[in-house]
Amino acid sequence: MKNILPKALSELIDDFGVLPGVGARTAERYAYYMLRNETALCRRLAGSLEKLHAHVGTCPVTFAFIDANEDVSPLYSAADRDKTVVAVVEDPFDVLAVENTGQFSGTYHVLGGAISPIDGVGPEQLHIPELIERIKKDKVKEIILATNASVEGESTALYIQKQIENAGLENIAITRLARGLPSGVDLAYTDQITLSHALKGRQNL
Amino acid sequence: MKNILPKALSELIDDFGVLPGVGARTAERYAYYMLRNETALCRRLAGSLEKLHAHVGTCPVTFAFIDANEDVSPLYSAADRDKTVVAVVEDPFDVLAVENTGQFSGTYHVLGGAISPIDGVGPEQLHIPELIERIKKDKVKEIILATNASVEGESTALYIQKQIENAGLENIAITRLARGLPSGVDLAYTDQITLSHALKGRQNL
Repeated sequence: MKNILPKALSELIDDFGVLPGVGARTAERYAYYMLRNETALCRRLAGSLEKLHAHVGTCPVTFAFIDANEDVSPLYSAADRDKTVVAVVEDPFDVLAVENTGQFSGTYHVLGGAISPIDGVGPEQLHIPELIERIKKDKVKEIILATNASVEGESTALYIQKQIENAGLENIAITRLARGLPSGVDLAYTDQITLSHALKGRQNL
Repeated sequence: MKNILPKALSELIDDFGVLPGVGARTAERYAYYMLRNETALCRRLAGSLEKLHAHVGTCPVTFAFIDANEDVSPLYSAADRDKTVVAVVEDPFDVLAVENTGQFSGTYHVLGGAISPIDGVGPEQLHIPELIERIKKDKVKEIILATNASVEGESTALYIQKQIENAGLENIAITRLARGLPSGVDLAYTDQITLSHALKGRQNL
């Protein structure tokens, strides 16, 4: 029934509709917003989209996002980053989350996802061989498995741990992020698994 | 802290962030989706945005959206539309909602919003004088006030009713959409106002 809308408008609605989690209603709202605002706003978003792929690259060492004119991620090449400590994360935006804590001065390794047979993602699609190479080359002392706290994230962490052991790499600490109560939470509303983890991982004061 | 992202990526995130209801996280998700997909997807959305303003116009009679190369909305000019029945709606997308019922063969008049002092929208910003003109010119027999069932919508409907009376227009039926139970609802979960309306407007079987 959408053919009563002008073609340019319904095309934009369709194009917004491909974004993740955006249904017909939300796409309409976005398109209407764009239409009501000045042309410059449309131009700016269009311009950013046009140059996205050409201007964003992937770091060949860490697989984090880099500017297309950089060779290696500054999070790897900077002098103040400790190359012997590597946080292994699933997605490029996870790097951002860890960086935002301001507590980490090591480097990153982006896997490009997690092992998930149901989504057709096997270990061969992740940057695991490159991680093993890096451990040897940079004489890595600690691998922090910072995958998501999901079934997929846990299996991926386990798989990587096995791969490191199989590669005969010794004297490497393999750690993972602590499990426990998230900040600000009410004990009574905490799920059982989280609380079990918090109990098991309790620390001396 | 976002300066660790490539510039082209953080610009796109900022640009997506202007869309209504889109926070930093959602904008990141959209940008990442665009980055993971082929360049063609970016191009298509960019193209649709570029031509939006140039290709979409406003009907000078109904104020509905039209293709820029049309003079008047086909919902007004088509031979099978009854010009003597006018549904008055707030926004252009409301036309779509009424059309989708397939139950209406009259024409539309888009006000361009509702009277809302808190948002700085007064009656002078709405297409009300044009409505009065149209009533005279097209010898309109019925005005259906199809504004939203909100405080703003109701006040706007009341204001228009007064304006029509003040203009000395007679022999016009002024109606409004029925209030009552929405389809599929559970009586026990219906709010009191809706239920009062449903009770007041009860109909003979």
